[in-house]
Amino acid sequence: MHSFYDGFLSASDVSEVFSERTFLQALLRFEAALARAQASAGLIPEAAAQSIVGTCRIELFDVAKIVRDSARAGSMVTPLVKSLKEAVGLFNPEAAGFVHLDSTGQDAVDTALALVTRHALGLIDADVRQAVAALMALAGRHAADPVLERSLQQHATATSFGLLCAAWAAQLVRSLQRLQASSGQALCLQWSGGAGALAAMKGRAPDVMALMAADLQLKAPLPGGPAQRDEWVALGCALGLLVGSLGQVAKEIALMSQPAVGELCDAPAAAPGRTAFACMTALSASGRAPLRVAALLAAMPHAHERALGHWQAELAEWPELLVSVHASARAMSGALVGMEADTQRMRANLDPLGAQWSPELAGQAAQLTRDQVAALTAP
Amino acid sequence: MHSFYDGFLSASDVSEVFSERTFLQALLRFEAALARAQASAGLIPEAAAQSIVGTCRIELFDVAKIVRDSARAGSMVTPLVKSLKEAVGLFNPEAAGFVHLDSTGQDAVDTALALVTRHALGLIDADVRQAVAALMALAGRHAADPVLERSLQQHATATSFGLLCAAWAAQLVRSLQRLQASSGQALCLQWSGGAGALAAMKGRAPDVMALMAADLQLKAPLPGGPAQRDEWVALGCALGLLVGSLGQVAKEIALMSQPAVGELCDAPAAAPGRTAFACMTALSASGRAPLRVAALLAAMPHAHERALGHWQAELAEWPELLVSVHASARAMSGALVGMEADTQRMRANLDPLGAQWSPELAGQAAQLTRDQVAALTAP
Amino acid sequence: MHSFYDGFLSASDVSEVFSERTFLQALLRFEAALARAQASAGLIPEAAAQSIVGTCRIELFDVAKIVRDSARAGSMVTPLVKSLKEAVGLFNPEAAGFVHLDSTGQDAVDTALALVTRHALGLIDADVRQAVAALMALAGRHAADPVLERSLQQHATATSFGLLCAAWAAQLVRSLQRLQASSGQALCLQWSGGAGALAAMKGRAPDVMALMAADLQLKAPLPGGPAQRDEWVALGCALGLLVGSLGQVAKEIALMSQPAVGELCDAPAAAPGRTAFACMTALSASGRAPLRVAALLAAMPHAHERALGHWQAELAEWPELLVSVHASARAMSGALVGMEADTQRMRANLDPLGAQWSPELAGQAAQLTRDQVAALTAP
Amino acid sequence: MHSFYDGFLSASDVSEVFSERTFLQALLRFEAALARAQASAGLIPEAAAQSIVGTCRIELFDVAKIVRDSARAGSMVTPLVKSLKEAVGLFNPEAAGFVHLDSTGQDAVDTALALVTRHALGLIDADVRQAVAALMALAGRHAADPVLERSLQQHATATSFGLLCAAWAAQLVRSLQRLQASSGQALCLQWSGGAGALAAMKGRAPDVMALMAADLQLKAPLPGGPAQRDEWVALGCALGLLVGSLGQVAKEIALMSQPAVGELCDAPAAAPGRTAFACMTALSASGRAPLRVAALLAAMPHAHERALGHWQAELAEWPELLVSVHASARAMSGALVGMEADTQRMRANLDPLGAQWSPELAGQAAQLTRDQVAALTAP
Repeated sequence: MHSFYDGFLSASDVSEVFSERTFLQALLRFEAALARAQASAGLIPEAAAQSIVGTCRIELFDVAKIVRDSARAGSMVTPLVKSLKEAVGLFNPEAAGFVHLDSTGQDAVDTALALVTRHALGLIDADVRQAVAALMALAGRHAADPVLERSLQQHATATSFGLLCAAWAAQLVRSLQRLQASSGQALCLQWSGGAGALAAMKGRAPDVMALMAADLQLKAPLPGGPAQRDEWVALGCALGLLVGSLGQVAKEIALMSQPAVGELCDAPAAAPGRTAFACMTALSASGRAPLRVAALLAAMPHAHERALGHWQAELAEWPELLVSVHASARAMSGALVGMEADTQRMRANLDPLGAQWSPELAGQAAQLTRDQVAALTAP
Repeated sequence: MHSFYDGFLSASDVSEVFSERTFLQALLRFEAALARAQASAGLIPEAAAQSIVGTCRIELFDVAKIVRDSARAGSMVTPLVKSLKEAVGLFNPEAAGFVHLDSTGQDAVDTALALVTRHALGLIDADVRQAVAALMALAGRHAADPVLERSLQQHATATSFGLLCAAWAAQLVRSLQRLQASSGQALCLQWSGGAGALAAMKGRAPDVMALMAADLQLKAPLPGGPAQRDEWVALGCALGLLVGSLGQVAKEIALMSQPAVGELCDAPAAAPGRTAFACMTALSASGRAPLRVAALLAAMPHAHERALGHWQAELAEWPELLVSVHASARAMSGALVGMEADTQRMRANLDPLGAQWSPELAGQAAQLTRDQVAALTAP
Repeated sequence: MHSFYDGFLSASDVSEVFSERTFLQALLRFEAALARAQASAGLIPEAAAQSIVGTCRIELFDVAKIVRDSARAGSMVTPLVKSLKEAVGLFNPEAAGFVHLDSTGQDAVDTALALVTRHALGLIDADVRQAVAALMALAGRHAADPVLERSLQQHATATSFGLLCAAWAAQLVRSLQRLQASSGQALCLQWSGGAGALAAMKGRAPDVMALMAADLQLKAPLPGGPAQRDEWVALGCALGLLVGSLGQVAKEIALMSQPAVGELCDAPAAAPGRTAFACMTALSASGRAPLRVAALLAAMPHAHERALGHWQAELAEWPELLVSVHASARAMSGALVGMEADTQRMRANLDPLGAQWSPELAGQAAQLTRDQVAALTAP
Repeated sequence: MHSFYDGFLSASDVSEVFSERTFLQALLRFEAALARAQASAGLIPEAAAQSIVGTCRIELFDVAKIVRDSARAGSMVTPLVKSLKEAVGLFNPEAAGFVHLDSTGQDAVDTALALVTRHALGLIDADVRQAVAALMALAGRHAADPVLERSLQQHATATSFGLLCAAWAAQLVRSLQRLQASSGQALCLQWSGGAGALAAMKGRAPDVMALMAADLQLKAPLPGGPAQRDEWVALGCALGLLVGSLGQVAKEIALMSQPAVGELCDAPAAAPGRTAFACMTALSASGRAPLRVAALLAAMPHAHERALGHWQAELAEWPELLVSVHASARAMSGALVGMEADTQRMRANLDPLGAQWSPELAGQAAQLTRDQVAALTAP
């Protein structure tokens, strides 16, 4: 419902990732994996699992109806499981009773969220890599071209624009590394519930969890624990840091693109205003994302088994954070590819403020730039 | 795109208010009012205005296409105005040139947002009034029934549950008063632009603004000013305060409804779990809304004429705030109507903590309750 | 302990307002008013009240010791009341038993906070008024001097710098009005506690409350209600809006002061860099204050009688918010007094972007400016 | 100036870490390390370095005066360096000219902040380790004692309290690991400035940086980069996550300690109310810290070389975050040591909600608990 207002600030492919249809599809993947694992563990008949798995196909379901019913049921899983049971029961009445067996809606939703998040992270990763590549190309091209270092408090000095681009690239590379590390921990099969909850599976719960995790290519959780969201929120923090770093690059570029400064501009082939527009998208995201991260952190002290309020607050904030991160990454990757440096304006702006530049300095800057770029491309 | 995750936390009628279709309709109201006012001021031909006004009907437009194009254009108004010009031009080619004359997309969007916000505020107001009525009924019924005042630090004392309900009602009434006061200032025709921008209207800009404001039943702005969002954000603060007050009531009710406390419960006729579910919705909103308000406040120091980033951040946060406020108000109004006090449990819980109660105290409490309820119903 | 890091961002007189000594002094005013009112209501002997009132002088107390003990006691009031009882008891042993009678630490602290807040609001008000006066002087001086209206999306137009200054002044005047309205409600004698708590005063509680409120020049509360912080947080919102408006002015000035733009600069008599420094202080405050407001809003749904955690979170955030608001107001009032417009640069910057200006436009701008200034100075 | 209000929420030893004196001491360590490194690199005379290093002793300086002057100078470093130069010059006039040579105030402050932060992290680490040890002891003691798993939506099940404690411990251990990883990156010598800034050191800047980093036991930065704060803010996020995890444990304990639930209570030897008080401290911190993290994230897109506003906002928020984290860790480590489980109440609370428990389940729970504790103590 918010897409209209968020429209400019998001990109269409990530919206698709968080569509209702895609999310229900992820829930069906959870249910299918559950049935397969329970069959392997001997907890349900193999034939029932086959019926369930075969029915877990999104095209068999009335997405709009399930969405409507979910609002009423206060749960996304309840109406989906109901439909799934009905569909399974048409051909294999006995199998219907094994749908979603000994599982909870919360675990299904959290796991499905991990699945769609993994997809979104892939899109984000690709855009940031493109931005890094563009910055490294700019770094190489302008390794020896002087630009003003601006500061409120200090005397004016010069550096090379290439060195600046290399530092921006390094910051984004660090963001990618943080994302990779934290998603490795966060993209986990969710399976909360203590001893009593596990008992239903007759001692096979750990096996079922391991099988499902392998099936869904997610990390396996420790059996017997309550819902704990710290790894998930840590991934949210890494996303917030990426938006901040993209915003920092965007802020610099926006200031350097002001007509009165004129050091950066759209490439002739790019749509006019594209750089400014992209920076504004990234800056808008960097103003909003910290508050999404704060909402996730503030939802951590949930009552008991992650009571309804905190759980859903987290759930509602999460796609907004990811959409915002992706919009920023997409905008900046596009801008950096289509941006040009006006080295003459850069040089001209040095003079009135008395910043020094020399061939010797140019040489040192070029060497530092090359070193930094090399460090980034090292394995 | 977020509706699925937000589903439980929002109510369907307010979603309708912020649908793409409704928003485009509001934009068309702006365009029609502009044309009417410009004709009255002699700036465009009366016949052109009639053509434009007659075409400003949402059912003539391809909403889905305009939404798609708006994402590309980076503006909601650009594709709508383009479609409107084409439609007007079919029957009155000359009139097409008078569509959206001397106006800006930002003013159109901000004014349309005021129109849909007014609608949403009406829904919120109705729900809060219902919650107040329910609380006043509870206050009357339980004016002399004792309940524990709980505190970490002090000795235990008793008060009457009716007195507690009256205080909750008073807090919500203050919220309504703040909403009314701030919406009176914030629901304003938006018309930014200084001397140069006004000049296009040949000295008639103030008249056009006054006519449009009257037409749309919005406050008229001062001519010649830049975009200033303080009144608008002040309305956002009033909404945040309402969510906080609803959350405070919800927190108390949730604690008093815990099985181990058992002082409040669902009425027999109500759906089981409804009270708990409603409190959680309200608490979830009260955890998220403060961050929306923070985002609005943080967007205030925008660059120049409200640069793209800040404007759109504000625009994207706004409906989320309103939807959240409405969900909270709707949930609590429903819960308070369908909630019952277990006065025996209330009385039983006094004893172990040694809180005193007496017929004399009951009489005083009942009197205080009646006084407070009377103060609330006074004109 | 934070003063060192906060040092540049705060001003010394407001720090004084929130010093430990001043706060203890305000607590003593509460205790004195309580004794006076209880004596007037016949609840304690007149002589005891006189002893207590005479001892409520900060210079009689060991401030450092009380502060140390308060950290241990988890309460500011406990060690103060202990010292007060001892001091009163030295000369009038019987009176010692009437110190802090039937009151709570929370009410004492909240009331003291209202007293010191009133003082801080006075300082803030004075600074904002000075800023408004400076802006109105600039508006008068530059009513017909053209300046660029900058926008990302629209064609360039010109307005007068005076008109811009008048609009900034208007925004600050609205902030002052909001502060006045909300402080009228928020600066209230705090007196929480329901029927049981009131009973201790034998039916005279309402009289005691009215007398104390008159004594301390605070609004009187409704008797019998629990702690409700909505009016207080509403004042916090008004403060947040003021910081946002000051930040918006600061952002514009900072951008117009960039060396490459050069439209605003320090007056020759002012310390060089003062304008930039002030804008940065205001922008820093406008980035931090929204999160303080969010913390206040988020603390609203407190458990029961404002449990320890929420109460103290609010208490700790509040002075930080006020200090931040005052730093911003002080910085901007200083900057606006010591700032000069470079009308030649303003005019020169119009040309490359093709903005039109004419004597006729200048005349209209001057008229609009005069109208707006007149509206601000009207009673 | 805020210590009074923050008093209950902070602990005295961490306040000491962030005292003005300690911070100036850290700045002097920076200046001494700079002089030593520049002498080693042949950039300044060895004798001058010895004079400077010998004078960098906090007891030689008038801390109160420097603090007063820093507020006026808008910099903590300016008055300190001035005093240092004077003191050095008394005995070695030539050496005075080599004080703070080719360095910046921002780098000195950021590096000093890293030094005091390292100290604070050590205190936090010790408290969290103590909390983990207490939880693991509780896990061992109650591995087979049943407790209710509470949920809004699901049927009631039981788990063992030991298993719950093990899960809490695991969450805190993950927090410690995140802190260790991110502090390894963030505790870095700060040295911003591009090619022009480095040139002053005649090609020896990289050596000077490496020597200083080794001297101060901080990570060495890449030469030639602008100020980038992502690693630092990432450490802030890790601190925010720790507060969230502590808050989650505190929320559970607070709910389980309610008189009506009665499952957890103060040990007889502990001060009465200690557990509740500690939980409230931790919950207060977990409500405030997310907004500090948001402020750090929002300050990331700073203009140019981290302009005054963003830099100081970050600087002012940082100690508040650390103090808050430490208060939470200290409170919870104390509470967990002095807390007792009432296993009879735990068992009694199972019955009304129909949760099943059996010797077989107890055995499984005990095994799961032992496995989890073993996993935590594995190297």
